[in-house]
Amino acid sequence: MKKVELLFDYPRLEERLIIERLKGRGMDVALTNVNDAPFVVGESPAEVSIVRPVAMFKAMYSAAVRESSGTYTVNSSSTLFTCGDKVLCLSAVRKKGIRVPRTVVALDRRSAEITYKAMQKPFVDKPPIGSWGRLVALITDPISWRTVLEHRSMLSSAQLKVHLMQQYIDHGGRDIRTIVVGEQVVGAMERIGPSDDWRTNVALGGKTVPRKLDDELVETSLRCAEIVRGDFIAVDLLQDKSGGYFVNELNGVPEFKGFMEATGIDVADSLASHVTVLLRR
Amino acid sequence: MKKVELLFDYPRLEERLIIERLKGRGMDVALTNVNDAPFVVGESPAEVSIVRPVAMFKAMYSAAVRESSGTYTVNSSSTLFTCGDKVLCLSAVRKKGIRVPRTVVALDRRSAEITYKAMQKPFVDKPPIGSWGRLVALITDPISWRTVLEHRSMLSSAQLKVHLMQQYIDHGGRDIRTIVVGEQVVGAMERIGPSDDWRTNVALGGKTVPRKLDDELVETSLRCAEIVRGDFIAVDLLQDKSGGYFVNELNGVPEFKGFMEATGIDVADSLASHVTVLLRR
Amino acid sequence: MKKVELLFDYPRLEERLIIERLKGRGMDVALTNVNDAPFVVGESPAEVSIVRPVAMFKAMYSAAVRESSGTYTVNSSSTLFTCGDKVLCLSAVRKKGIRVPRTVVALDRRSAEITYKAMQKPFVDKPPIGSWGRLVALITDPISWRTVLEHRSMLSSAQLKVHLMQQYIDHGGRDIRTIVVGEQVVGAMERIGPSDDWRTNVALGGKTVPRKLDDELVETSLRCAEIVRGDFIAVDLLQDKSGGYFVNELNGVPEFKGFMEATGIDVADSLASHVTVLLRR
Amino acid sequence: MKKVELLFDYPRLEERLIIERLKGRGMDVALTNVNDAPFVVGESPAEVSIVRPVAMFKAMYSAAVRESSGTYTVNSSSTLFTCGDKVLCLSAVRKKGIRVPRTVVALDRRSAEITYKAMQKPFVDKPPIGSWGRLVALITDPISWRTVLEHRSMLSSAQLKVHLMQQYIDHGGRDIRTIVVGEQVVGAMERIGPSDDWRTNVALGGKTVPRKLDDELVETSLRCAEIVRGDFIAVDLLQDKSGGYFVNELNGVPEFKGFMEATGIDVADSLASHVTVLLRR
Repeated sequence: MKKVELLFDYPRLEERLIIERLKGRGMDVALTNVNDAPFVVGESPAEVSIVRPVAMFKAMYSAAVRESSGTYTVNSSSTLFTCGDKVLCLSAVRKKGIRVPRTVVALDRRSAEITYKAMQKPFVDKPPIGSWGRLVALITDPISWRTVLEHRSMLSSAQLKVHLMQQYIDHGGRDIRTIVVGEQVVGAMERIGPSDDWRTNVALGGKTVPRKLDDELVETSLRCAEIVRGDFIAVDLLQDKSGGYFVNELNGVPEFKGFMEATGIDVADSLASHVTVLLRR
Repeated sequence: MKKVELLFDYPRLEERLIIERLKGRGMDVALTNVNDAPFVVGESPAEVSIVRPVAMFKAMYSAAVRESSGTYTVNSSSTLFTCGDKVLCLSAVRKKGIRVPRTVVALDRRSAEITYKAMQKPFVDKPPIGSWGRLVALITDPISWRTVLEHRSMLSSAQLKVHLMQQYIDHGGRDIRTIVVGEQVVGAMERIGPSDDWRTNVALGGKTVPRKLDDELVETSLRCAEIVRGDFIAVDLLQDKSGGYFVNELNGVPEFKGFMEATGIDVADSLASHVTVLLRR
Repeated sequence: MKKVELLFDYPRLEERLIIERLKGRGMDVALTNVNDAPFVVGESPAEVSIVRPVAMFKAMYSAAVRESSGTYTVNSSSTLFTCGDKVLCLSAVRKKGIRVPRTVVALDRRSAEITYKAMQKPFVDKPPIGSWGRLVALITDPISWRTVLEHRSMLSSAQLKVHLMQQYIDHGGRDIRTIVVGEQVVGAMERIGPSDDWRTNVALGGKTVPRKLDDELVETSLRCAEIVRGDFIAVDLLQDKSGGYFVNELNGVPEFKGFMEATGIDVADSLASHVTVLLRR
Repeated sequence: MKKVELLFDYPRLEERLIIERLKGRGMDVALTNVNDAPFVVGESPAEVSIVRPVAMFKAMYSAAVRESSGTYTVNSSSTLFTCGDKVLCLSAVRKKGIRVPRTVVALDRRSAEITYKAMQKPFVDKPPIGSWGRLVALITDPISWRTVLEHRSMLSSAQLKVHLMQQYIDHGGRDIRTIVVGEQVVGAMERIGPSDDWRTNVALGGKTVPRKLDDELVETSLRCAEIVRGDFIAVDLLQDKSGGYFVNELNGVPEFKGFMEATGIDVADSLASHVTVLLRR
């Protein structure tokens, strides 16, 4: 049996680095393209599977089937699902006392209309799933609200019709991302949004700079990882004018190219090191 | 604070009975239509919420937000999600040694084609989510396979494009459903499929008859509930010609009208009784 | 053979009035619910079919099949399709010299981005199909543009991903609707938009008042009907500050409840009268 | 002004050959990628536009906007739409007496169920739009019918939920394709279906062989082109055991690579020759 498997769909720089670092530590790595491989429930080729598909459901499902035969997955299907869904994620961390932006979940157009009237403007409206800031809208007035409400109701996915309506945190065009591997926060960066967008996502043209860790960042990040039982997660935080942190999102299949460039931290090597620990157990 | 809340979207006979039985035991029941109510993360009106929306995501999300303030949910968002997804559900129970039909998960059309060639015919093809037997197809030959493969690839949901390809269990047109409340199996029934369909779902015109519990049914059902940490679940099993049981599906928001009619068991009252225990904790 | 057929899906006041007026003139009216009736290509029960399904494709298809056996349809499938699609409609009337708002059609996200840069703001963005003002957005700045662009790209319909990007006509919160039956303009009304929306659609809460016809309105309306070969159409026009008219939309299955209330004109009777003329040919 | 424009999205061999042949005849050809180019209603760069986008709506819309300024399009938006939609196409040709397979159009699940009971089995079920045989299913029994009905009802497109239910023509695994350019039938071929599919589409693995034209093929093809006012169309016909022809489909943006290979006919050159005639008018 090969000891370590990498599950992927579209191999990015991240996946290539992970493979390199695992091999550099003498590990035999099985590569599995999840679009080619049948996944048999109850069978697995590996002791540890590193789950890297870009498509959220492919990540979650490939992890779940591997787990059915006792394989240890990084991250587990449960972690992936909780991190991949903003309702589940915010609910889970808030339950344990982590500060998050005030969030109202509207499951239907009717409750969305009721919530709209009560929300302080501007506010942020987003669906439960999606990456790279996609469909995250700033609602400033009735016109922008109508536009979002109508478009969202026309999407075919039941999930995408759900509205998370969130307090707008005046973050000055920046947010913070930390990465946790095992029980360690490997570092932090800031993302600075592009001038023509209020969002900070790198996919939208944002830039990244290193950020010094402080105790609150470290503690919050580790608690988030613990809450979702994640071995390898990214924590996105907003900081308001008073300096307070709010956890905004967790990511269970973190991209880290921009993080590496900003901080010089070898995330793939930290992950490989963690895998050696897992294999020894 | 009202102690017990019932979350619903389309109230069926089941919800009306649950309310009646809870009130019959002297409980104050808050009724929440999930389509009207804004769900504020970190706030809740109840100690226990009974989660009954028909729409799976509305059930899961309303449960998750209630849990964020410490409310006990029946069932929890995690149970609902695992039961609501056939890949997660089969993987979870198989991991603990429960017998399930041999299942291959194909995440892409490419792996589906590869799997098709290797499967013994006929076999069952279904997507991970969906109720009432919908989109569950019997694949007998290349023509039925092409039909399913093409239609599935045209669905807009990424999840519905995933194929569970399962060994066909020759169940003689019957399956078995047990219902578990708390740590007790309240009873069992058989569903007998309509003459013009190979599926047994009541929604497709199947009939129900009572079924005597046996030790294996009881033990398997309780273990399934334990694995998914469900307080109130239905377990669907197939029995092959040799008498062996296979767990086919779990249901986290069980309909029980047909079950009641077939068995005379007052499921709503068992649930109400379980809620009194939960409130005492 | 029954001489006149009414094709419908959801019968509204309009359909009931049409039936009443046809019967009042002694006609034998066959009522066909298009959701129940199989449509056999080459067969028809009527000489004239009045096409009233709310669902655009059901209107167009039921008309087309009736035409396959020589039935005269009001309106024809060709008229319905041209009126039902804003790209086809604006292109058709513009070709014949009718003034329309300056419109750029972007078939892809790439060309939409290019067009966005060149458009004067604010401008109107809408998809080719849809009724009641749905998905019609006012683009004022990069944030509202991003919101619309992202949401539109997530819609599953290829057609709804197309952008009509139109000059914003400063219409003072009003538009004008005329109705043409046969070769006569039966009247006109104004629609005044609700205070919290810039659109004038009655479905969005707008109000209606009568409007006096003038020569330009009459001539423009008749030419539009002639261009699309419509027997019974509504013409929506915008009027800018200088008084100039712009044709904005045509409607091939006109709703006329609000029109009747505002103007007192018996539209259904005009239609019935036109049908008697058609039957005599 | 450039005289001839080629509109395309994904350039295939066909588009490259058309460009070559137009240039070979001394024409100045503007190439327009419809995904990059904003289409301004009322403006056009060409006298004749050859419409070749693979995506049906992009073909139709780009043609319509070009026509708005008087450009002659091959084919016109009207031809493209009629050919691109099987309900419109079969209705249009049947109206003029062309023989087509007996076809019932079911606009809703209810009428589809009614039609199913009355149809002789096996029969063919297909949606109004789609190419390459996609979603064309052979219904042999209640199981295949349930599969198709359920999957179709889950598609997000209203159009794809419509069922064309057609008499199965026992074509012996072959169909016939002719190509018409201007007022001439340039030739014919046969498509022979792959052994594991009952459909004949080349995209599904079918083979092509030349076919001799006969009077009926020529006359039927020319009448079809005339009915839809097509300058350049492919006509797909089925021939039953008795030798009778049935028009099955028309194609307004014909692929002709397979046709060329089977017959040796230079279709692109015929088209280029026709364009020279159009330019002279």
